[in-house]
Amino acid sequence: MILVVSLNPALDITHGLHHADWAGVNRAADVHVRPGGKGVNVARVLHALGLDVLLIGLAGGIAGNGLRAELRARGVAAVMADIADETRRTFAVVDSGRGDTALFNEPGPRVTPDEYARFRAMFAAQLAGCTAVVLSGSLPPGLPASTYADLIALAAGAGVPALLDTSGDALMLGTAAGPAVVKPNLAELQAVAERRLAASIPEGRGSPDVAQSWCCGPVAAAAPAADILRGAGASAVVVTLGSDGLIALTQGESWHARPRQVSGGNPTGAGDAVAAALAHGLATDTPWADRVAHAAALGAAAVAAPVAGEIDLAHYQRALAGVQVCPVRRQWP
Amino acid sequence: MILVVSLNPALDITHGLHHADWAGVNRAADVHVRPGGKGVNVARVLHALGLDVLLIGLAGGIAGNGLRAELRARGVAAVMADIADETRRTFAVVDSGRGDTALFNEPGPRVTPDEYARFRAMFAAQLAGCTAVVLSGSLPPGLPASTYADLIALAAGAGVPALLDTSGDALMLGTAAGPAVVKPNLAELQAVAERRLAASIPEGRGSPDVAQSWCCGPVAAAAPAADILRGAGASAVVVTLGSDGLIALTQGESWHARPRQVSGGNPTGAGDAVAAALAHGLATDTPWADRVAHAAALGAAAVAAPVAGEIDLAHYQRALAGVQVCPVRRQWP
Repeated sequence: MILVVSLNPALDITHGLHHADWAGVNRAADVHVRPGGKGVNVARVLHALGLDVLLIGLAGGIAGNGLRAELRARGVAAVMADIADETRRTFAVVDSGRGDTALFNEPGPRVTPDEYARFRAMFAAQLAGCTAVVLSGSLPPGLPASTYADLIALAAGAGVPALLDTSGDALMLGTAAGPAVVKPNLAELQAVAERRLAASIPEGRGSPDVAQSWCCGPVAAAAPAADILRGAGASAVVVTLGSDGLIALTQGESWHARPRQVSGGNPTGAGDAVAAALAHGLATDTPWADRVAHAAALGAAAVAAPVAGEIDLAHYQRALAGVQVCPVRRQWP
Repeated sequence: MILVVSLNPALDITHGLHHADWAGVNRAADVHVRPGGKGVNVARVLHALGLDVLLIGLAGGIAGNGLRAELRARGVAAVMADIADETRRTFAVVDSGRGDTALFNEPGPRVTPDEYARFRAMFAAQLAGCTAVVLSGSLPPGLPASTYADLIALAAGAGVPALLDTSGDALMLGTAAGPAVVKPNLAELQAVAERRLAASIPEGRGSPDVAQSWCCGPVAAAAPAADILRGAGASAVVVTLGSDGLIALTQGESWHARPRQVSGGNPTGAGDAVAAALAHGLATDTPWADRVAHAAALGAAAVAAPVAGEIDLAHYQRALAGVQVCPVRRQWP
């Protein structure tokens, strides 16, 4: 079983409109309510693939109960520890007339140390029998940036490998706890790599040892920064590159996987689908060349789906046949 | 006990923002969730006045459970029959930078005949011991326009007088069932009066017998139309006139009540506060001159409150002292 952690999930509400009046009264042509947040999306993709997955996280208030109900309605197994504060909602207004989408995000709930302690005990109890743990998304207010590091260390103690997909301090501190995989996108990677370069790279290590590939340009930008995260503690670093696919830098090998064609425009869901594929690869110890191919194909299939967390399995199979996988060549010293 | 019917309540969510990006991502500065809908507002005002009130209605899905929780949190006694479809949400974005408010309303739930039959039985069971019934707001999809007429007839059978506050066909058909009071605003009144004048007023009754008052101008516009509703079956018609207060036309007497000053800008809540005051007057058989004074004062206090369904009791007492009440003078034949 893959255990997916979602500490700051959301209830996503979308109103479809033909032409919104931003200073008046609007009646939605259609309304959709979904369970949201990165961890939830990862769990939903794993569930759609028919894999054994348990979502574990925090939920509170009316929106938290709504989230639980929406997960149940979709058959996603979940244990969400109750918190006093309210799970956040996101509210999207999709204006089909203008082609604009306005997104209104609520702040996450404030989580108390006691609530986290209860979650942590639940998490520890679920580790027995787990093949991999995914830690995905932002941390809610009240939880320290070291939270993922704490959970990764707990998982390591139980012999369960972890995949971390977050940003900023939570990514840096989590990486130092030694996860099997970290999966930033290029912007998240560069943000932490720049700080790391500025703050803590010793003299003489300013030029990381990966610089170019024979695949394409974006790899050259991502690989040096990814190596910094490997140096900081991650066994493997996977960086998503939008329509250029992704690169994976591991101890012994480095790969670039690129889908033949990416159509649609749902990048959030794409990163979560990539995380789902990598988690399955981690759980089953699939060779990396296969992992990246599946991850790139699943990412492309998610971009094509209109909604984050959903996947078109036929599109996935077609995309898989077209993915180009090639090694990232390292410079000789 | 006053029984307040809310067949199409809402869960109202408000995001406060400094400057909304209508094509991008927004993070709310503050978020408020409230039970909403006209019947809910009436019940909340009666509860705030310390009166014995029971809200009865329909609620479904996540938003329905949210509504129940928000009512409980405010101490409003409510029995909301469960329906399969989802209670509507309203989502307001208040942009304090521009001074605009955008409101996004979901369609109401589709109510089945079986669900209405269950509600109707609940309603009938609650009539014993009731002093008045308030029927307020729109009907959800699936319920016929004759629904309020059906409930008013049931109440009449139990000897309980009814106050009806709705619009369109539901107002016309409900009025024909003989409620003690109907309470449209001027626009709602004129909409039904024009149709009534066009469709069914016999020759020679084209000019109703009320035409002017010594109070002020808007009364002259409202009184003839209000008389049409009286002719259609309502014992009394109260028309809210915004900052001009309200007029009440009854069998034996007609009054205009006008608050000294109306500040703020929450007209929805004002109409519901007026309905609450009129319901209390109906339940206690208060003289009409007093009813309209209290109604106008409570309406003014509601306009001043930032949120529909809430009331500043001190403001209400101050407003009451300043309300001007005068008879509406009828022309001699």
